[in-house]
Amino acid sequence: MNFTGLSAFPITPATMDGRVQTDALVRVLERLRRPDLGSVGLLGSTGTFAYLTRAERRRAVSVAADVLGSSVSLMVGVGALRTDEACALARDAAEAGANAVLLPAVSYTPLTQDEAFAHYSAVATASDLPLYIYNNPSTTHFNFDVALIQRLAQVPRITAIKMPLPAQGNLASDLARLRSTLPADFAIGYSGDWGCAEALLAGADTWYSVIGGILPEIALRLTAAAMAGNAAEARRIDEVLAPLWALFKAHGSLRVVYAMARQMGLTDCDPPRPILPLDDAACREIAAATEPLAR
Amino acid sequence: MNFTGLSAFPITPATMDGRVQTDALVRVLERLRRPDLGSVGLLGSTGTFAYLTRAERRRAVSVAADVLGSSVSLMVGVGALRTDEACALARDAAEAGANAVLLPAVSYTPLTQDEAFAHYSAVATASDLPLYIYNNPSTTHFNFDVALIQRLAQVPRITAIKMPLPAQGNLASDLARLRSTLPADFAIGYSGDWGCAEALLAGADTWYSVIGGILPEIALRLTAAAMAGNAAEARRIDEVLAPLWALFKAHGSLRVVYAMARQMGLTDCDPPRPILPLDDAACREIAAATEPLAR
Repeated sequence: MNFTGLSAFPITPATMDGRVQTDALVRVLERLRRPDLGSVGLLGSTGTFAYLTRAERRRAVSVAADVLGSSVSLMVGVGALRTDEACALARDAAEAGANAVLLPAVSYTPLTQDEAFAHYSAVATASDLPLYIYNNPSTTHFNFDVALIQRLAQVPRITAIKMPLPAQGNLASDLARLRSTLPADFAIGYSGDWGCAEALLAGADTWYSVIGGILPEIALRLTAAAMAGNAAEARRIDEVLAPLWALFKAHGSLRVVYAMARQMGLTDCDPPRPILPLDDAACREIAAATEPLAR
Repeated sequence: MNFTGLSAFPITPATMDGRVQTDALVRVLERLRRPDLGSVGLLGSTGTFAYLTRAERRRAVSVAADVLGSSVSLMVGVGALRTDEACALARDAAEAGANAVLLPAVSYTPLTQDEAFAHYSAVATASDLPLYIYNNPSTTHFNFDVALIQRLAQVPRITAIKMPLPAQGNLASDLARLRSTLPADFAIGYSGDWGCAEALLAGADTWYSVIGGILPEIALRLTAAAMAGNAAEARRIDEVLAPLWALFKAHGSLRVVYAMARQMGLTDCDPPRPILPLDDAACREIAAATEPLAR
């Protein structure tokens, strides 16, 4: 199984009362059944894991395992506020056919570094699957110290990390510094679609991608160019996507991809309330930004 | 019913797998059955609402309604990531005997001001109880614009707000400015125990208090002095509590009050994992800080 390259994060269409719409989920996932895709990241932030019950999350994993089969690696988000619940979700994911689990440091009471270490260690032993650290401070508000990442990289089965784009400074030097402190086979990837062409060009192992979950073609072309070192082509494609990146920043990528999924006829489901669907003006901007990509 | 003055926020003792220990909860709440207490804030952040299931939260409300009877107003935290779940929790709280609901702006995907408005409006119509806005950016990371608070103050049943201490600047002028923009009968209170003597002296209506949930006597004396305008006595008591405030800031008040509850023989329960109990050195410091208060 290949977990590097493009990791596509799809939405999980669900009714207003939180029931996963498996027919729509199948339509979303069929577009991702491609051997050139590194992995599918089900039930990530874009997959609204935080808003779905354990039973619905398990149902979504089963559907994804059926649709993707052995053609694409399936990573499943197992974030939960309680350690025991995250462990149960990891066991569920393993039983339902996942190939890896992704764990965000979800918190309400802000966690200490030691608490996060204990949480990750517990979930790593809950199943036999590799565990990816999902470092997502814009939603979890937890910040990993480098020392914590180093400790976690020593824990069996913890094999990779998804990093946020650096708030300031230079991604390439940040990545080089981080890589120098971690085992050679520990994979480092990035999310934040608008910065990921540069992240891949700088040598990141994985692009954890929102756009990859809805428009896999163009994201795969960007990834292939960047990983082949073709900076001009990667940046050309990135520039084509720039209007969409601007909308991601303005509205949040989750709201934008829900509007895209509706425009593409994949689902009529809206994001879970309290998140609201975007208004007509924003939807028109999204349609205008995506229209050239379909050509 | 009196919702101003001291609002005491107790812990909700629960087993490691999340079952509320009603015997320990009764011991905690019996100390709060006092007519001079403005209210009990059950299932607030200190009450670990975010870590308990709907069924366990309902059980805790029933116990509290039984213990407190008509002697103290019972406010109940109904925070949830999903709007439909927060509405269900508000109905549960009303049916189980609460006198008001407290709603924090819990989020995973960061919310817009409009989304928060729709969320609060929906929960305000879910029951007949007054709704208090629980503005808690240190845990929710949501920031209320003044314009949003003004809009919410126009919604029927939304009658009060719990504010955080200002990160910088002068609380008295902040409070005066906020009050000038809101209806005269809209109550404004503060949390952040170390700043609340000054908040009450500046004219805040309510002290939403962690220490009040575990050491109600001294918190009531401080509140009475401050609300009578006796600044010298309020500040004298605040000074007595200063070592505890320092520990709250160092470790988080939740971890400290769990250690206190254990030392006082109220419960052996620890906070929900991933939150860890404090180590022996910290517990000794807590014992030293609280020992003079028992004299």
